[in-house]
Amino acid sequence: MEEFERRVQDSFRRQAFMKTLGAEIATRKMGEVEIRFPFHRSLTQQNDFVHAGAITSILDSACGYAALSVAPLDHDVLSIEFKVNFLSPAVGEEFCARSHVKRAGKNLIVCAADAFALKNSQEKLVATMLATIMAVMRIA
Amino acid sequence: MEEFERRVQDSFRRQAFMKTLGAEIATRKMGEVEIRFPFHRSLTQQNDFVHAGAITSILDSACGYAALSVAPLDHDVLSIEFKVNFLSPAVGEEFCARSHVKRAGKNLIVCAADAFALKNSQEKLVATMLATIMAVMRIA
Amino acid sequence: MEEFERRVQDSFRRQAFMKTLGAEIATRKMGEVEIRFPFHRSLTQQNDFVHAGAITSILDSACGYAALSVAPLDHDVLSIEFKVNFLSPAVGEEFCARSHVKRAGKNLIVCAADAFALKNSQEKLVATMLATIMAVMRIA
Amino acid sequence: MEEFERRVQDSFRRQAFMKTLGAEIATRKMGEVEIRFPFHRSLTQQNDFVHAGAITSILDSACGYAALSVAPLDHDVLSIEFKVNFLSPAVGEEFCARSHVKRAGKNLIVCAADAFALKNSQEKLVATMLATIMAVMRIA
Repeated sequence: MEEFERRVQDSFRRQAFMKTLGAEIATRKMGEVEIRFPFHRSLTQQNDFVHAGAITSILDSACGYAALSVAPLDHDVLSIEFKVNFLSPAVGEEFCARSHVKRAGKNLIVCAADAFALKNSQEKLVATMLATIMAVMRIA
Repeated sequence: MEEFERRVQDSFRRQAFMKTLGAEIATRKMGEVEIRFPFHRSLTQQNDFVHAGAITSILDSACGYAALSVAPLDHDVLSIEFKVNFLSPAVGEEFCARSHVKRAGKNLIVCAADAFALKNSQEKLVATMLATIMAVMRIA
Repeated sequence: MEEFERRVQDSFRRQAFMKTLGAEIATRKMGEVEIRFPFHRSLTQQNDFVHAGAITSILDSACGYAALSVAPLDHDVLSIEFKVNFLSPAVGEEFCARSHVKRAGKNLIVCAADAFALKNSQEKLVATMLATIMAVMRIA
Repeated sequence: MEEFERRVQDSFRRQAFMKTLGAEIATRKMGEVEIRFPFHRSLTQQNDFVHAGAITSILDSACGYAALSVAPLDHDVLSIEFKVNFLSPAVGEEFCARSHVKRAGKNLIVCAADAFALKNSQEKLVATMLATIMAVMRIA
């Protein structure tokens, strides 16, 4: 496993909320990350679709970890802000968010990510995010 | 309980994800909603702050229910898109999102919401959302 | 004129694009700014409404100058990103954007602004912005 | 010239604000549009960079016309909202915005666009937009 991969995996494992969502991460290469979770009823809204907040959560973490994978080793990352568009109801057996770094500045890293629903082996785009991440010197 | 309140409460109770977050809703008046959850370790990120995705989830639902409270009775609401700014780390004993309708059009309802952390009886602004909601004729 | 007012006015006068829009600025107090321009055909889109880009431009400058008015004296400000919702067609005799600082951090300043159309002495909300501004040490 | 191209060109020519910016449009194919303008001092901010509002204006129109090119023939389009990230100072001899349709629904069309500065024959990414457009039946 490469340095940036270990770094992303270590931090991800400490995100209790990702465990609550049943989510797992895969780093594809520096600046690109994929997070997935299987459908679970505990994640639904009133129409039994997956809640926009759950989809947003993996999009956010995918953007954050794409940024972390390119940030200096003694830095951590913070979500400054993001915007999400919801393109289709989140219906499927599994959901995944794929992010990439759009531009890495000294302090600010802009990432984009798409979320897909997997149903009968077909992927459907359900949401897209544009996010601003800040790299900050790690304290401890 | 008034009609719009019952309507919001009924729909909210069907959101399994809100139960997963330990969240409860209060409608203050038409077009204004508050959702809260107590701190729980299952909602944290790598630094033991509450995950941006959990905060975003109650901001999103608060905007959606503010919109629902002013939508025609035979309509349901969908999140089209939103943007969130994170203003302070989400550290506290309890978290709440307060939303209001900024403009209600025939089909689109624009809502704003702020999220606060409560710590030692003090509220701190931790995030702010601007959201576009669509009112759609209920199918069933 | 107070220090922060002079500072805002000096910088605004150097924005040639604001002259192109016919815009003028008024600082109401630290962290609050208003920019206005009268209707002019050169600012319209295909339906003779004022172009969303012209409205966005004064919202952006209003957020930037609200941020500048609270930034350290040796700092300048940069727009990192913003989001705008368009709430009504921009029809009127005059247009104004009013901004305020939502949260001023050490480096990042989050501002909100509303844009209004004035018609027959009545104000109508036409757009709303949420913006992230960065304060950076001035170079020259 | 194809139908969708003529349609985009006709509407663009009626946007007086695009003339004010010195902008021209090229439709590359259905759902993809490019708008450019040369540097002009009348479009600058206080540091002689092109104003974020001018860049945003061509990004917005590029998204709107990408949407128009795929909308039903008796429909017009309206910008509902957009978000822009500014990635580099807008310095160059020419500026262009390239948009594409991300998802076209029945009423809502989500578009993305990038803006580039051209300097010494080199393109640099300066901004990126994610926009929500509504297709509405044309009145006249």
